[in-house]
Amino acid sequence: MYRIGIDLGGTNIAVGVVNAQYEIIAHHSVPTLAQRSAEEVIRDMGDAVETVLAKAGLTAADCESIGIGSPGTCDSEKGIVARAYNLGWFNVPICDILRERFGIPARLSNDANCAALAETVAGAAIGCKNMVLITLGTGVGGGIIIDGKIYAGMRSAGAELGHTLLVLDGEQCSCGRRGCWETYASATALIRQAEKAAAEHPQSLLAQVEQMTGLAVFQAADKGDAAAQAVIDRYCVYVAAGFTDLVNSLAPEMILLGGGISRQGERLLAPIREYVVNNCFGQKDGAVPVIAAAKLGNEAGIIGAAAL
Amino acid sequence: MYRIGIDLGGTNIAVGVVNAQYEIIAHHSVPTLAQRSAEEVIRDMGDAVETVLAKAGLTAADCESIGIGSPGTCDSEKGIVARAYNLGWFNVPICDILRERFGIPARLSNDANCAALAETVAGAAIGCKNMVLITLGTGVGGGIIIDGKIYAGMRSAGAELGHTLLVLDGEQCSCGRRGCWETYASATALIRQAEKAAAEHPQSLLAQVEQMTGLAVFQAADKGDAAAQAVIDRYCVYVAAGFTDLVNSLAPEMILLGGGISRQGERLLAPIREYVVNNCFGQKDGAVPVIAAAKLGNEAGIIGAAAL
Repeated sequence: MYRIGIDLGGTNIAVGVVNAQYEIIAHHSVPTLAQRSAEEVIRDMGDAVETVLAKAGLTAADCESIGIGSPGTCDSEKGIVARAYNLGWFNVPICDILRERFGIPARLSNDANCAALAETVAGAAIGCKNMVLITLGTGVGGGIIIDGKIYAGMRSAGAELGHTLLVLDGEQCSCGRRGCWETYASATALIRQAEKAAAEHPQSLLAQVEQMTGLAVFQAADKGDAAAQAVIDRYCVYVAAGFTDLVNSLAPEMILLGGGISRQGERLLAPIREYVVNNCFGQKDGAVPVIAAAKLGNEAGIIGAAAL
Repeated sequence: MYRIGIDLGGTNIAVGVVNAQYEIIAHHSVPTLAQRSAEEVIRDMGDAVETVLAKAGLTAADCESIGIGSPGTCDSEKGIVARAYNLGWFNVPICDILRERFGIPARLSNDANCAALAETVAGAAIGCKNMVLITLGTGVGGGIIIDGKIYAGMRSAGAELGHTLLVLDGEQCSCGRRGCWETYASATALIRQAEKAAAEHPQSLLAQVEQMTGLAVFQAADKGDAAAQAVIDRYCVYVAAGFTDLVNSLAPEMILLGGGISRQGERLLAPIREYVVNNCFGQKDGAVPVIAAAKLGNEAGIIGAAAL
C-alpha cells in the first residue's frame, strides 16, 4: 500500500508518494503562490497529487491516505489549518476538501510535527517510542513523538517548544512573550549574537564578514577567531539548556537536531551533549538521551505527512 | 473489584483499599522508620496491607492490584525504586516483593505522578485526557498525564518539571543546575523571597513576622502590607511563567495546583490565569487550559497508587 504526503510551504508545495518503507517513489513540486485564496492553492495541491500519482503509475485508490504538513497552528482532529500567517490562512478545512476530491482519508499536522514523525519512520529515530525533534532556523521549531505518535495537546496547539523560557523577562520574542528559548537559540539569534560580537571586536575575523550567516560564524571560528568561537560556545549553551529542559520534563529516548545549522554536526552536538549530561536531573545517572542530527532534510516534510 | 494503594512517605506509610469509584473504604497507617533496611520497611508495608484488607473484610484475591507511590526516581516498567534519597533506597525491587507476597499485580510510580493520576480518576480533573499537576512545596513537583495515563518518559525519569529553567544561570538549585523553576516557585522559595523583602523593608508588617511561612506572607498582604503584596505578585509571576511553559510545550486541557499553598485559591489562581492568557503562544486564542486547585489533598497518594 502507498501513501501520499504533501509538504505545504510558504513558497512551494512538494508532493510525494511513498511506499511501505516510506521511500519516496514519485515527487512533484509546484509554487504555492500564497497570495491567492486557499481554495485555489488547495486546487493546485490536488492537481499536483494527480500528477505525482500519474508519475508513480497509481491512482488514489492504491493509496491509504493523503497527509498534509502545514505551517502554523493546525487542528489535526478537525483537519483544519487554524492559523497560518505566512499563507494568510485562517480556519481552512483542508482535509475535507482533499478527502472529497480523492475519496481517501486526509490527515493534517503542523510541519514541525511531521518532520519529527518522519525521523521515527524513516530517519535517525527509527523505532524510537518517545523523541523530540528541534529545528533551528528563523525560529526554534519542535515536534514531540510520544508512544510513536505525534503529541500536540489540546487543539494541536502544543509543541511550541521554542516558546518555553530560557530567561524570564529576557529578550523580546515575536510571540509577544519575553525570554523565549527561540530568541536565544534560533539561527536568527546566532546571527544577531555574532553581529553584536563583531561590533564589540572590530579587530576580529567576525567583524570582516560582510553578510553574517550561521555558516560564516563557524567558518570564522574554524580560522581561529576567538570572538567567533566565544559566540558559538555561548550559543551551544543556549541550545543545550533547552535540550536539558526537554530531558527533565519529557525524558525522551532521543533528541534530534534539525535545520541548516545541524549540518555543523559534532561541532554543535559534542558541546551540547556535554552540557546536557552535566546539567540534567541526576546528571550522568539521569535519563540522558541520544542526541544526534536529524537525517531526512528536505524530504522530512513529505515523508512525515505521508506517515500521519 | 477493589484496588490497594500504598502511599510511601519518608515519615509514614499510608495504605488504603479503594472501590470501583476510587473511594477509600478502609485505611491504615504505620510509621516508615526509614533508617531500617528496605526489606523491613516493605515487610511492614505488607503487614499494613493485611490489616487494611481485614478492616475492609476482603482478601488480596478480591483486589485487582497493589499500587505503590514512592518518593524519588522509580522505574515503573521494572517495578524498582531506583533512587529515593530520603528513604536511603537504591534499586529496590518493591513490586516483585509485594507481588510474591500477595499474588496480585504490583505497580509502582513516583508520588507526584500518583497525585496527578488520582486527580483524573477521583479529583478535580475527572475525565481529563491530558493534564499536569504542579505541587508547590519544598520543591516544585510535577505529574504529567497524557491520554489518561502517567507520562514519565525513559526509565520513568521525566516530569521533573521543577527542574526546567526559569532563568538561565540564575539561582542555585539543589539538583546542581542553576535557575530551575523550583528555585523561584517552590514554597521554600516564597519564604526566602519574603525574608529578603522583610530585610529590605524593616518598617513592613512582613519584617515583624517571627517565623516566616507562606501563610504568613499572605496574612501580611491581607492586612495591607505593600512589601508582602509585592512578594506575592512577583511569586505569582514565577509560578505562572512555568505554567505558561507547560501550555506552550504540552497544551494540556488542565493544569492543577497542589501543595499547602494552593489553599490560597483564587488569591493565587486569578493572577496566574491572567499571566498565562497574556503570555502563552497565541494569547487568548491559544490553548489556554483550565487552571484550578487540586482537590484530593492527603488522599491523592493512596488513590493515585491504587489507580496505577
